[in-house]
Amino acid sequence: MRKGCIQTSCGILSAASVVGKKEKDGPLGSCFDLHSADDRFGQRTWEKAEAEMQRLALNTAMAKGEIDQYAIEAIFAGDLLNQCVGAAYGLKDFDVPYFGLYGACSTAAEGLLLSSLLVSGGLIKRAAAVASSHFCTAERQYRSPIEYGGQRAPTAQWTVTGAGAFIVGEGQGAAALVKGVCPGIVVEKGVRDSANMGAAMAPATADTLLRFFDTTGKKPRDFDLIVTGDLGYEGGDILCELMALEGVDIRDVYNDCGMMIYNREVQDTHAGGSGCGCSAAVLATYLLPKLECGELRRILFLGTGAMMSPQSIQQGESIPAVAHLLCITSKEEKEWTLC
Amino acid sequence: MRKGCIQTSCGILSAASVVGKKEKDGPLGSCFDLHSADDRFGQRTWEKAEAEMQRLALNTAMAKGEIDQYAIEAIFAGDLLNQCVGAAYGLKDFDVPYFGLYGACSTAAEGLLLSSLLVSGGLIKRAAAVASSHFCTAERQYRSPIEYGGQRAPTAQWTVTGAGAFIVGEGQGAAALVKGVCPGIVVEKGVRDSANMGAAMAPATADTLLRFFDTTGKKPRDFDLIVTGDLGYEGGDILCELMALEGVDIRDVYNDCGMMIYNREVQDTHAGGSGCGCSAAVLATYLLPKLECGELRRILFLGTGAMMSPQSIQQGESIPAVAHLLCITSKEEKEWTLC
Repeated sequence: MRKGCIQTSCGILSAASVVGKKEKDGPLGSCFDLHSADDRFGQRTWEKAEAEMQRLALNTAMAKGEIDQYAIEAIFAGDLLNQCVGAAYGLKDFDVPYFGLYGACSTAAEGLLLSSLLVSGGLIKRAAAVASSHFCTAERQYRSPIEYGGQRAPTAQWTVTGAGAFIVGEGQGAAALVKGVCPGIVVEKGVRDSANMGAAMAPATADTLLRFFDTTGKKPRDFDLIVTGDLGYEGGDILCELMALEGVDIRDVYNDCGMMIYNREVQDTHAGGSGCGCSAAVLATYLLPKLECGELRRILFLGTGAMMSPQSIQQGESIPAVAHLLCITSKEEKEWTLC
Repeated sequence: MRKGCIQTSCGILSAASVVGKKEKDGPLGSCFDLHSADDRFGQRTWEKAEAEMQRLALNTAMAKGEIDQYAIEAIFAGDLLNQCVGAAYGLKDFDVPYFGLYGACSTAAEGLLLSSLLVSGGLIKRAAAVASSHFCTAERQYRSPIEYGGQRAPTAQWTVTGAGAFIVGEGQGAAALVKGVCPGIVVEKGVRDSANMGAAMAPATADTLLRFFDTTGKKPRDFDLIVTGDLGYEGGDILCELMALEGVDIRDVYNDCGMMIYNREVQDTHAGGSGCGCSAAVLATYLLPKLECGELRRILFLGTGAMMSPQSIQQGESIPAVAHLLCITSKEEKEWTLC
């Protein structure tokens, strides 16, 4: 049988975000905790700037939740850089067990999902999930150095300069509850265009969402919001169509962090935002506060990742993708269950 | 309080290894399940060869254990390639939830550790851990293309062409039992020489080992073997010295997969083997069979990872490292506990 939803019993105790200037200037700008006016965060390389964002995000989440590092038993972290050096260098001074992840832009969801499972299983009391991306490190590594000024395809997305950190623990006193998770299965449908990652990721997202609905019996109308990490305008549209083909209409409750973080008309970001930091920052300080105050009551959050490398694309390979789902509710929905 | 050992209750149901020619020619050659005489595994790029090793290793572990893919609820996998494409491409056709890891050469241990925690917590019934490395992909990515024929430092290690896969489940009927795990904390002591990764990883290994002994009250003599992933001759020596400085003598029971896999005299591998595939293949089909037949009864297995990137080294950064520990015993030690 194909695997579906796993029920969890835990909550998100605290969360924080750090972003760059463009994100601060966007429609959600006022939500983010910290930002750097020059995207450098006081560092001399872009890579160190990204590492610093991870450190700042976790420190801020700990401070907001008044949680000491010794109360955290595991950090799950990653980013898009080769060998995930944003996370490894940014978090190396925390005296906390460290699990490096590579889930491309699904990293925040992957970390939250594993944190939720370990806390729900009673194996640890508190875990942190951290993820980041930086426009300048990503351009240099995946495309061309920013000084080159390469032209972008209309389907291409803009890598968010941002980081998000979350601390997961027992539900009591949590800002929001994690009711269940549905881990992603890798799906690859032959898309080879690395300037259209929304198209590559949409089928994996539909796969996870359908498995979730199949195994819980829930419907899209049971949720206030179904939000994906960074499918963008192109991939978001494809997801809605793929779901409609399966008889599941999500359009009324669907949105995407990559569509929300920039102003499409004036910020010249083509198909929307992307990068591990996109969904991490938007969930941490835009969506979670809405769940905390009850403006949102039940959401499905899907981190979406495209797992190619520049080399695999050069070698003519297609793009495998994965989408991890979390069902998150407000505290008012304490009695509501998934099954 | 610094975090120590977490008790687990599960076992390794099945394991398999796949290696290249040099590993097949080494002292453990007869142990490995599959090998390729030209290291290509029938593929047209080295990267595809590495992905194929991951696929073969997991398939073989499933076949040896007579375990269907639908009985596996999670795969934890990774490798050393940028964006971990060895795992993402190699395992994309399994219809199983996928968690990408980046733990450098500690990946096999990281995956086994997370699998053991999730199974012990009752969250899933069976999980797989897969890790690989390939000499030719690693040389191209981290050093220079093999055609260049660059000279190697005496402290440098030789990346193992190999993959290992493990299936973790409830203890009953298992080949060996996982009694506890001690997740690694990132340690960075200022080593900047990427041709001496043993030195960079030894302090992180000592940190994990000391936390394990501190929190369990066990001593080195309680174990038949304390085995590290790939510290090699250089790092292994440093580890024994660091432990001795803390008053813990491990020399009598210590060994390293990187020291075991090649013949130092005739195979010209300098400080020994390294790479995710080194500890994965040696544990899967050399150490586990010894545990299964009772020749070994209690071992500590430490996956060791150096988490720099070529770019972070070029930018003058030092090397953060991590070491994840698993305490594995034979079935005869069912009643023996860690606390």
